[in-house]
Amino acid sequence: MLTANEPNRKSWIEVESNSDFPIQNIPFGVFIPTDDFTTIGTRIGNTAIDLSALHQLGYFSEIEELPEDVFLQDTLNDFITLGRPMWRKVRNRVADIFDSTNGELKNNTAHKEQILFDVAEVQMLLPVFTQDYTDFYSSMEHAMNVGIMFRGKENALMPNWKHLPVGYHGRSSSIIVSGEDFHRPVGQMKPADAEVPVFGPSKLLDFELEMGFITTDGKHLGDRITTDEAEDYIFGMVLVNDWSARDIQAWEYVPLGPFLGKNFATSISPWVVTLDALEPYRTESPAQDPTPLPYLQTSGKRTFDIEIDAFIEPENSVESKICTSNFKYLYWNISQQLAHHTVNGCNINAGDLMASGTISGPEEANYGSLLELSWRGAKTIKLDGGEERKFLQDGDSLIMRGHCNNGTTRIGFGEVRAKVLPAKE
Amino acid sequence: MLTANEPNRKSWIEVESNSDFPIQNIPFGVFIPTDDFTTIGTRIGNTAIDLSALHQLGYFSEIEELPEDVFLQDTLNDFITLGRPMWRKVRNRVADIFDSTNGELKNNTAHKEQILFDVAEVQMLLPVFTQDYTDFYSSMEHAMNVGIMFRGKENALMPNWKHLPVGYHGRSSSIIVSGEDFHRPVGQMKPADAEVPVFGPSKLLDFELEMGFITTDGKHLGDRITTDEAEDYIFGMVLVNDWSARDIQAWEYVPLGPFLGKNFATSISPWVVTLDALEPYRTESPAQDPTPLPYLQTSGKRTFDIEIDAFIEPENSVESKICTSNFKYLYWNISQQLAHHTVNGCNINAGDLMASGTISGPEEANYGSLLELSWRGAKTIKLDGGEERKFLQDGDSLIMRGHCNNGTTRIGFGEVRAKVLPAKE
Repeated sequence: MLTANEPNRKSWIEVESNSDFPIQNIPFGVFIPTDDFTTIGTRIGNTAIDLSALHQLGYFSEIEELPEDVFLQDTLNDFITLGRPMWRKVRNRVADIFDSTNGELKNNTAHKEQILFDVAEVQMLLPVFTQDYTDFYSSMEHAMNVGIMFRGKENALMPNWKHLPVGYHGRSSSIIVSGEDFHRPVGQMKPADAEVPVFGPSKLLDFELEMGFITTDGKHLGDRITTDEAEDYIFGMVLVNDWSARDIQAWEYVPLGPFLGKNFATSISPWVVTLDALEPYRTESPAQDPTPLPYLQTSGKRTFDIEIDAFIEPENSVESKICTSNFKYLYWNISQQLAHHTVNGCNINAGDLMASGTISGPEEANYGSLLELSWRGAKTIKLDGGEERKFLQDGDSLIMRGHCNNGTTRIGFGEVRAKVLPAKE
Repeated sequence: MLTANEPNRKSWIEVESNSDFPIQNIPFGVFIPTDDFTTIGTRIGNTAIDLSALHQLGYFSEIEELPEDVFLQDTLNDFITLGRPMWRKVRNRVADIFDSTNGELKNNTAHKEQILFDVAEVQMLLPVFTQDYTDFYSSMEHAMNVGIMFRGKENALMPNWKHLPVGYHGRSSSIIVSGEDFHRPVGQMKPADAEVPVFGPSKLLDFELEMGFITTDGKHLGDRITTDEAEDYIFGMVLVNDWSARDIQAWEYVPLGPFLGKNFATSISPWVVTLDALEPYRTESPAQDPTPLPYLQTSGKRTFDIEIDAFIEPENSVESKICTSNFKYLYWNISQQLAHHTVNGCNINAGDLMASGTISGPEEANYGSLLELSWRGAKTIKLDGGEERKFLQDGDSLIMRGHCNNGTTRIGFGEVRAKVLPAKE
């Protein structure tokens, strides 16, 4: 049997040549079709596919162990809990159903009406329920840039940074799906020239270009997941915009880390691209020196070549690309992150989100935040519509798009987008 | 109608004079009775009361809006979502049913067999499902002690500390209920005299004496909860032991805060004592100087007088009290904590846990951690069985007990207990 990744496959559903969603992708998401119910689905080209309807109509009958209601859910969590062999069976079967050589659904108009929807007409929801959201800090270029700005070149990287993937716990309740807008946060800040803190809307609202992986259920509390086992516990990846209010964060974060400067909103893309789909885009991470402790060691291609672009679209204006980064720049790979997270026995669950931290690269054009692109406000970013920015203004939409292209096949994540609404006073 | 708090009330269930659970308490918890199901319940004296059986047998028929299956649940979350007026109705009705003057259940042997259980024979479970766990740092004495140890007396308190209740996000997945033991965490540490980090079991395992409040559903993302509204969003409180591996934490925590040094386990007590039950124990917080910003201001008695004692019980030895603290020592009260947490629009859900941070008091006997009691290992703590401790050893159980006593009535939280099992290598 062909796998979904087979590069020569074509679908009988029309797919534009620059689409993120050819038949080689088959991501998973949750949406509300035109009707009044919620379903798990996938996407080919601009067609959203209702997997619960496919299942109900018997198209998964050969996968005996697939629970009857597994796609008639508000989140992917139950499906994720079934584990990698099942994700793989479903993804490969979907590729078969939509293969251009397969007529079983293609020629059944009545079934197609129940199963296929225009992506523009469905409402995408959060793909998973996340109990725990962790954010790492795994881009050396980003850590260096921030370190230089706030502590000078000599002390830019903290002593622990090259020994472990630094991370912290984020807020799960305020994770929102692409398309949900949010209000500029208000809070307490202390301007450099002020004696006492002030209260008001954040003036230094920023995005952070990140990606995140979504886990399945791990081991029991007390048992660690090794770097070799890690990928078995990872369902797939999404784009993450870890919105940051730099002025709130700067005043609050000592000594326990970011809190209100981050937890007002975190946006993620709606389609989870599986690690299986990312397989053809494996690449090596930057060399690690010093060699990490044994529990963090990995070999071979343990990361992925994923280009991620960010755009600002001011209200009533055009979008402008402000940076291009790549997931492969990260110093610490996802297997190292997960092994570190669980080495003390910390348990993980299906739906947990573990984000990379801001991904910056070696060139200025690769910097993944306005803090770095404007170098803490010292520089101005010129936009295509004539506007200028140092940080985000009300009405600005920030859009991130990510895709892989190995010269043979392109797959992608679509986009994650949200607009900054004015602060509520 | 009498409320549950009425000090002269007595129950027809026997209650020892020093019990934490007289009829004036009526806490809520989740347990597995002798049978093979899970129920929400309450407790009077040493009797666990199955609220789902009470409901099924018609004892709540006068509370019309109470959903049929609300007590036949694995967690309190759905009940909490019903809101304060319902919590109050149920609690007052339970007090009526068990009032010594009421014969309706007292004289019904068949019903009593279905409803009443010996607490020693039921298994307590986690009372709530917690999506988000936040830990504050609201004891000035604790922050001062830690600051003096690590930064010296001059810089003990960070500049932000008296302006806002510093807090951070913790890990929800590893919250465990009293009685669940855990393994000593392993991880990466950097001893003061080492050139490079080492890997192994934590040598500086500590407890943190804390309490936490459990919220109900808050407002929508973007809307804040004011200090005046805050208590309406708080269901009740539990004892919290925020286990800490000091050596793992010291190496990892810059610049993003505690992570693996904390997220291997957090223990909570199983019975949630409602704010209504705590009403007679209201007291004032320490004076705040400087006056906080308006969004953090409160007046009147916005905290509670709750004594909390901690004990070490080495394997095969006796328990020894190691400290006595009090919830009232906290500089920031729970209304300020919740108002701060949501001022940027961060949303909260039923079951969220917000802990106080280590509660230390003015005297050495009030210090709420071994870090402070042993002054970073400089002092030795002598136990009643002849043992000595600076930090926790394998086989040690740490027990915390908390209660209120206003001279008329005593209510309490019972205990939170866990044993340190040896590290898994």
